[in-house]
Amino acid sequence: MLDLCTLGTGGALPLPDRGLSSLYVRLQGRALLIDCGENTQTAIRRIGWGFRHIEGLLLTHYHADHCGGLPGFLLSLAKSGRKEPFHIYGCTGLKHVVDGLRVVAPQLPYPVELHEFHEDLYEFDIIGLQVTAFRLNHSVPCYGYRFVLPRPRAFDPQKARELGVPQNQWGLLQQGDDVVQADGSIIKAQQVLGPERPGLSFVYATDTRPVDIIPVMGENTDMMFLEGMYGNDEKLHQAHTNRHMLFREAADLAKRANTRQLVLTHFSNCIDVPAEYLPEATAIFPNTVAAEDLMTFRIAWPGR
Amino acid sequence: MLDLCTLGTGGALPLPDRGLSSLYVRLQGRALLIDCGENTQTAIRRIGWGFRHIEGLLLTHYHADHCGGLPGFLLSLAKSGRKEPFHIYGCTGLKHVVDGLRVVAPQLPYPVELHEFHEDLYEFDIIGLQVTAFRLNHSVPCYGYRFVLPRPRAFDPQKARELGVPQNQWGLLQQGDDVVQADGSIIKAQQVLGPERPGLSFVYATDTRPVDIIPVMGENTDMMFLEGMYGNDEKLHQAHTNRHMLFREAADLAKRANTRQLVLTHFSNCIDVPAEYLPEATAIFPNTVAAEDLMTFRIAWPGR
Repeated sequence: MLDLCTLGTGGALPLPDRGLSSLYVRLQGRALLIDCGENTQTAIRRIGWGFRHIEGLLLTHYHADHCGGLPGFLLSLAKSGRKEPFHIYGCTGLKHVVDGLRVVAPQLPYPVELHEFHEDLYEFDIIGLQVTAFRLNHSVPCYGYRFVLPRPRAFDPQKARELGVPQNQWGLLQQGDDVVQADGSIIKAQQVLGPERPGLSFVYATDTRPVDIIPVMGENTDMMFLEGMYGNDEKLHQAHTNRHMLFREAADLAKRANTRQLVLTHFSNCIDVPAEYLPEATAIFPNTVAAEDLMTFRIAWPGR
Repeated sequence: MLDLCTLGTGGALPLPDRGLSSLYVRLQGRALLIDCGENTQTAIRRIGWGFRHIEGLLLTHYHADHCGGLPGFLLSLAKSGRKEPFHIYGCTGLKHVVDGLRVVAPQLPYPVELHEFHEDLYEFDIIGLQVTAFRLNHSVPCYGYRFVLPRPRAFDPQKARELGVPQNQWGLLQQGDDVVQADGSIIKAQQVLGPERPGLSFVYATDTRPVDIIPVMGENTDMMFLEGMYGNDEKLHQAHTNRHMLFREAADLAKRANTRQLVLTHFSNCIDVPAEYLPEATAIFPNTVAAEDLMTFRIAWPGR
């Protein structure tokens, strides 16, 4: 199962109790971050989920509220004893930005590997998750991310027994490999595996006007983290000008995606209490939460 | 009078309630910062002293815990409506560092003027303060700063009356200018001004081994902010290796300087409660305070 923590839920400018953008994603002892705004290293200490096993950082874009905490985070990661490579993913300009920010963190005890992509859609794997970066519509190039934790097809032990497969070959079948029996006959994995099952999935997309790719990527996901930069239509003009979304626009995307839960984050500092605007979203998509810093979310397999 | 606020008192790594290095200096509606570690913009919001009138930043050196908050601070300053130039002072490498960090804050509505110095001693004026930057002994080039707010000599109105100076000329004399009387005689400012008086003064010096320039600069000052990176002699080896000071070493410098008050700051994250180590310092220099984030200090003219 996936554990997620909104390390910082502020957009543009922080407030005393609202740090800048970062989401901590944890899966079976492995972890990654999405964005690394100022205050990220402090928030990680506060939640106590640790630095050492964070393998990578996925940047949405290069505004300071999304990457200003990078030098400090890299130094905290160094202090944690990490020696293995640390991977940073981001769109065009990644090397320029990381090189710039690392002027105050030039020496690290681990290699930093940059993965700079340029496509509108870019797929990769990290910490066992299948990730798709997808282009959004902001004032600078900006990407959202979809994450899928694949779920293996169910193995039917009774069927395997009926087919006479020795138990020491079950593991191969479970992995999807076919096996050859003592009599030369072949048992196909297909014969003992159930139908395809959806994995666990979530989407993270902030700093954008509503675009069709968001509900496409969010289709039937367990959770969507979308920006709630502005509370209601009083800020519609600003939302258009600064390429951000209102609560209701995010809710509409969640509804179109048929996701299970919407988490709003990345609030303008002009919003004191995001929950006060929540009805703007729940009128359209009832299962909506307004995140706070250090709120945790769990996405688990059905029935567990 | 001078108002000072320790915006962040952490060294190297922040703790949940201890931000990284920054001191806010306020004088008659004008202000400057010394260092700008991560969390500085949040701390300024918390203390409520404002951004708009901060005219400059004095950097001690280019480790991330002293300048990692620069991009976010510059953006908060932009949001405050500042249009006037903002001045950044620092030693060799300043342009390289500011250019690097500004990769995520490239566009600002005010000019940023860099003042890069290379001398062991460098003097300049800002917000009405006479400043001397002085070279310390750290693992990279690092400077302390001495600040003096000059105090005008006292004007003796009785003497001026006796000399027959019309009251509309008193202002000139107070400024130190001589004045010519109706009969052609000259009244010298010297005749109506009292003796030279010391100004208000303080020193800020962190990230260094003890060096003789510190008590020289701190001589008879009102206040010295010195690092208390390590609490006691258990960390002496680390203090030597990392070029930092123990509480007792800072206290010894304060005693040698004959300052009025010592404020310890820049605590290692291995120190949970700095005040617990305070006896290490007060045994040598009794008037010592262990700073906390957002503690404020006032340096006022005698008798006010």
